[in-house]
Amino acid sequence: MLSKNKIKLITSLSQKKFRDETGFFVAEGTKLVLDLITVFPCSLLVATLGWLKENEFSNADEVVEADENDIRKISNQKSPQGVLAVFKKPEYSWSQEDLFHKLSLALDEVQDPGNLGTIIRIADWFGISDIFCSENSADVYNPKTVQATMGALARVHIHTVNLVKFLEECQSNIPVYGTFMDGENIYEKELSKTGIIVMGNEGNGISTEIEKLVTERLLIPNFPAGQDTSESLNVGVATALVCAEFRRRM
Amino acid sequence: MLSKNKIKLITSLSQKKFRDETGFFVAEGTKLVLDLITVFPCSLLVATLGWLKENEFSNADEVVEADENDIRKISNQKSPQGVLAVFKKPEYSWSQEDLFHKLSLALDEVQDPGNLGTIIRIADWFGISDIFCSENSADVYNPKTVQATMGALARVHIHTVNLVKFLEECQSNIPVYGTFMDGENIYEKELSKTGIIVMGNEGNGISTEIEKLVTERLLIPNFPAGQDTSESLNVGVATALVCAEFRRRM
Repeated sequence: MLSKNKIKLITSLSQKKFRDETGFFVAEGTKLVLDLITVFPCSLLVATLGWLKENEFSNADEVVEADENDIRKISNQKSPQGVLAVFKKPEYSWSQEDLFHKLSLALDEVQDPGNLGTIIRIADWFGISDIFCSENSADVYNPKTVQATMGALARVHIHTVNLVKFLEECQSNIPVYGTFMDGENIYEKELSKTGIIVMGNEGNGISTEIEKLVTERLLIPNFPAGQDTSESLNVGVATALVCAEFRRRM
Repeated sequence: MLSKNKIKLITSLSQKKFRDETGFFVAEGTKLVLDLITVFPCSLLVATLGWLKENEFSNADEVVEADENDIRKISNQKSPQGVLAVFKKPEYSWSQEDLFHKLSLALDEVQDPGNLGTIIRIADWFGISDIFCSENSADVYNPKTVQATMGALARVHIHTVNLVKFLEECQSNIPVYGTFMDGENIYEKELSKTGIIVMGNEGNGISTEIEKLVTERLLIPNFPAGQDTSESLNVGVATALVCAEFRRRM
């Protein structure tokens, strides 16, 4: 039986304010919950009897059985899948020493929660273990972002940083890449095995302040070059194309 | 002044049934409407006085001024941009002769309207002028798809076809490509300048029936190869990676 207090806690977590206050976030669906429960402390798991019988898991502080109607009340999904869990937000540390020996992503005010989730999934696919988000980026623990990661959130570490300060420290040690309309064709340019790839805001691209800290300007060419076309690619698609080219060379 | 009949017509067009019956579809926002109005017959344009003063266009059969409240009533957007237009769905023809000399996309039951829109935008970016959709794919004229194309719908021709019959005719003339977990690494495989690239359903990939008609099996490799990772890429992201690699070689 799902108490009123628990319903209140869970629904409040769709707001950033309450996620920040409590340190908790919500994930839904079998694959996502089972991926995350192996990595993040789970304070509460709510599921139907059917789900509990079919799935094995450990590490949940509290398990509450609920019927489908109750789950519908607390779900952010159109078609709830019979399971929802409350996790503790992780706190990750990172070291410059480690960072300077690999490829990482930095996001300059990516605003759409779905895009952020897609980018986390792409990072996972391409073996990028760390993403550094500016303080004005979408919140990683927004339910839409969490769902869009499809479980990649269990493997990719997301850090919220002062991006200007962060890139200032990076740029004297490793290349800082960004994509611009006047950059060099990524397919013709030498690419390093280490570095930071900066992706910008959906509407405005990389901000002027961050642009100054980019040391290598890339262009994703359209086809045929110079043809009138869509003005830009979606930020998730652009991230995938850039990551794929770095990894193809390795 | 927006009449009740017009409000009824416009709101009905969010349903496929009424789009099919009337042959009309709706697009919103300055860039999208101005991109489409140069290409598709516009039967009705609804805009605020402010928008009408600021923007130039021709070719609209009827223009109705409306206030923001009225536009909110007919809009599918969270933040309506002051303009919405009703267009006639185009009817495109295509010839095998033309098709056998270029690269095209085929979609096997892509279900999410946003993904379909993203794929149309990607096709535009990579100079792919034709997309062939199976009859059970999402409807191109769904408002979410139209909006997600960001205007690319004005340049890319979408055809709904019996995909089995279509690919049967293609495969004896040009390569039919598809991506599979057991395909050959796309970065190591020879790629033709002409052909059909088949992308599959979000959950199930390419169907068994269509798989039989694929002549070239590709793999988009993750990194490091064989590492435990997200199980798959979003279909829009996968489409972009495949198209980019074909175009990089050209």
